[in-house]
Amino acid sequence: MSERVMLPSLDPRTGRAAADGIEVTTTQELDAACAAADAAARGLEQLGREGRAVMLIAMATELEARREELVAVADRETGLGSPRLPGELTRTVFQLQFFAEVLREGSYLEATIDHRGETPAGVRPDLRRTMRPLGAVGVFGASNFPFAFSVPGGDTASALAAGCPVVAKAHEAHPITSRLCFEALAAGAAAAGAPEHSVSLVAGWDVGRALVEHPMVRAVGFTGSLNGGRALADIAAARPVPIPFFGELGAVNAVVVCPDAARTRGADIAAGLVASFTLGVGQFCTKPGLLLLPAGADGRALRDALSELVAATSPGVLLSERTADNFTTGRERLVGSPGVTVLAEGSPVVTAEGWWASPVVVTATAEAVASVASHEVFGPSLVVAEYASEAELDSLLDGLTGALTATVHATEADDLAARLLERFSRQVGRIVWNGFPTGVAVAWAMQHGGPYPAATHAAHTSVGAAAIRRWLRPVTYQDVPQSLLPDELRDGPVAVPRRVDGRLELPAS
Amino acid sequence: MSERVMLPSLDPRTGRAAADGIEVTTTQELDAACAAADAAARGLEQLGREGRAVMLIAMATELEARREELVAVADRETGLGSPRLPGELTRTVFQLQFFAEVLREGSYLEATIDHRGETPAGVRPDLRRTMRPLGAVGVFGASNFPFAFSVPGGDTASALAAGCPVVAKAHEAHPITSRLCFEALAAGAAAAGAPEHSVSLVAGWDVGRALVEHPMVRAVGFTGSLNGGRALADIAAARPVPIPFFGELGAVNAVVVCPDAARTRGADIAAGLVASFTLGVGQFCTKPGLLLLPAGADGRALRDALSELVAATSPGVLLSERTADNFTTGRERLVGSPGVTVLAEGSPVVTAEGWWASPVVVTATAEAVASVASHEVFGPSLVVAEYASEAELDSLLDGLTGALTATVHATEADDLAARLLERFSRQVGRIVWNGFPTGVAVAWAMQHGGPYPAATHAAHTSVGAAAIRRWLRPVTYQDVPQSLLPDELRDGPVAVPRRVDGRLELPAS
Repeated sequence: MSERVMLPSLDPRTGRAAADGIEVTTTQELDAACAAADAAARGLEQLGREGRAVMLIAMATELEARREELVAVADRETGLGSPRLPGELTRTVFQLQFFAEVLREGSYLEATIDHRGETPAGVRPDLRRTMRPLGAVGVFGASNFPFAFSVPGGDTASALAAGCPVVAKAHEAHPITSRLCFEALAAGAAAAGAPEHSVSLVAGWDVGRALVEHPMVRAVGFTGSLNGGRALADIAAARPVPIPFFGELGAVNAVVVCPDAARTRGADIAAGLVASFTLGVGQFCTKPGLLLLPAGADGRALRDALSELVAATSPGVLLSERTADNFTTGRERLVGSPGVTVLAEGSPVVTAEGWWASPVVVTATAEAVASVASHEVFGPSLVVAEYASEAELDSLLDGLTGALTATVHATEADDLAARLLERFSRQVGRIVWNGFPTGVAVAWAMQHGGPYPAATHAAHTSVGAAAIRRWLRPVTYQDVPQSLLPDELRDGPVAVPRRVDGRLELPAS
Repeated sequence: MSERVMLPSLDPRTGRAAADGIEVTTTQELDAACAAADAAARGLEQLGREGRAVMLIAMATELEARREELVAVADRETGLGSPRLPGELTRTVFQLQFFAEVLREGSYLEATIDHRGETPAGVRPDLRRTMRPLGAVGVFGASNFPFAFSVPGGDTASALAAGCPVVAKAHEAHPITSRLCFEALAAGAAAAGAPEHSVSLVAGWDVGRALVEHPMVRAVGFTGSLNGGRALADIAAARPVPIPFFGELGAVNAVVVCPDAARTRGADIAAGLVASFTLGVGQFCTKPGLLLLPAGADGRALRDALSELVAATSPGVLLSERTADNFTTGRERLVGSPGVTVLAEGSPVVTAEGWWASPVVVTATAEAVASVASHEVFGPSLVVAEYASEAELDSLLDGLTGALTATVHATEADDLAARLLERFSRQVGRIVWNGFPTGVAVAWAMQHGGPYPAATHAAHTSVGAAAIRRWLRPVTYQDVPQSLLPDELRDGPVAVPRRVDGRLELPAS
């Protein structure tokens, strides 16, 4: 017998293996996992909305029961520490419970009934439309959120809610955390009587491509880098039967400070920005990456305050050697770009062990902005530029690509703000007013996505109630007898909102 | 000056040019059209829901005002005749009016408000989510519906409703119809005060690829063949900034007759099927293409009735030389396949002029079904096969690809039916019970699409209210002041359904 290839578990604070890691999935095992997930699809759908709600809550409970071990292992594998990791686990537990609420509420089915009737275009048959799950799906978690955007995260929660079995890929940067989370989800599924293979775990550097190509995988959720995500998206699109690839690929998130905001709240904005772009050592896809300040004394004062705060920061540990290498490369490219000057840096890294980095802020000339802002630098970096007029600001913003967020700092005296909101509504997924973009609430009204390259499908979100829609497909039943219709499409009172003959109806509460 | 290249207008009944045709769009003109459409996007959105509803109604009125000319020209270019073309125009007018209703109702915005509040995962900011248009889009109409799925059809109506300017490609098989329809839409836009370039027309064999590749085009709607559609979908996916390509690529639509239905209603089913598969000379994407009958006397009787009816049919005129060539090729491949035998044909084509074809029905052995059913033959053909047991039926259906529709003929005695419905809910977009799949009502509950190759995005529909969603993208506003929010997201009573703090609220009516 040959020995199994292992995916090591490394401690980013030291760079050394801290545990044995997990076994790399073989081609045969991947095939078996996808086939088992496909076979579980019907059972998971037939569990029904309430059955799946109970399952999600049981999964949340199992995660909560393993809190101490999960946080400790995740900390050892990611270096994200406390209070971040306990908070992220709380959010992940809440997210599973939230999708149970989405299931029980039932609007996501978009149940629609048109009874037989006359129309100006002739007789319309009886038509009834609802949403059905796509089947087994693949989920690629992100390195920077070992819980909330990884094995037990929003993609998995929303796909399971929809009724789609999940084949999750363990992240190389937190393999044991991935396995422990998978075990919690599997225990929750078992406790709720869900099919055994409602969730599966696969692992390995090369398993991703095979997962996206597998004929029994009907869609993929992905959170990660632009390069890796685009490569997988291209594979998904080129399959004999193409599948949707819902990739959240990160972004350069712009923050515009309007003149009166700079004048009246400059110091607060500087403090908030430094806290935001260094949060989690800058490893957020919603990290503010570009700050546009008004030229003149108020903008300069804000910049000076920012510079002072950054100079007082210390190094933080990055998630993995790859993250550290990419940050080093990205930082060097940024600092070496024409028109770019280092404004401030945190204290230097003093240890030779592990993968540490210090925050850096650079200034860029107006000419340099489009070029340096077209590449996200994942980690604690921020580009600052000035605008001398509204026309120059427009021109700077015209050069930006799609993004997850844009932030406007303004007061009532800043007439510019309305135009910025209108523009950003065409460029990003979420517009933040007088705040900071890091922090993505799990909510009905959340949108986490945006025009490419922020996401591969700008019409969808990976956070919030609407995330479930990615895993669903509508089916219309024409003249089908009552007894053979899905429950939510039968005549008579039901517990979900429905549109009946054009009118939206709420269930009696 | 060089002469303009023309797209000829041909009469399929004779194959001869019946008019001068229209000018082929140059590369420069295409670029100008896309830029003008992009520039019109903001104005079309700012026209508002009511403004666009008025515009759609004005467009419908302008089409109606040109009815006589439109029907005459479309008949000369397509040979579809009466009552089909007057009926299709009525449907197209209704469809534009229907999207005005969808706009006024306002659910499509999915307006959602979460007020600031505490959650188990921390403080949630004020979040408000709505839908915004994508920008300029391209529309490729189909040869077989010169009105309803062409320049003034469902893609155009839903995109304009969403607020997206449309660059429509004139179909080669009905260029003058395309131009006349465009003129009606442009007159409607002008009458309603919409931006001048809310709708544009381009034409030419090679303009399609350039339209899909154009950086100012944000999405594409397409109705047409699998080969052509997949090629364009691949181009859309490979762009530096990929865009969604909503292709409806046709299907092999299965009809299963259960044993008791064959016994009790065999003759009616045979008559309905012949009417359905020869409707419009079989040139429907929802044409029934595969009939599965129970083995034994009842199935044989149905087959014999079908055969007799088909033998009594006459040739019909196909849409174009290309359609005729493809039908000839497809028919020859079908008839020449192992296990396939001609069951019946209509009377032979007697004219040497134009592009005529006669209906054909073949039988296929169980072994041959998967192979012959994997290629749609666009035109009046039908494949008939037998199943000797439920297991054999399952195995036949397992071999089918995704489709737009599936039809079940059954009585209460056919226990098989429930299983068929469950299976088809995973394979198709619309399930028809004791009816025939041709005929796609414009309705709130319609689904026209399905798993690949029926459509490139199975989550979407090209007919019915939900068709508008293809052209929209969500945006969330975080902590934005009331005065700067879109109207539908402000506090206080509004005229659209909204979800507020998790609860769906209807407007006071």
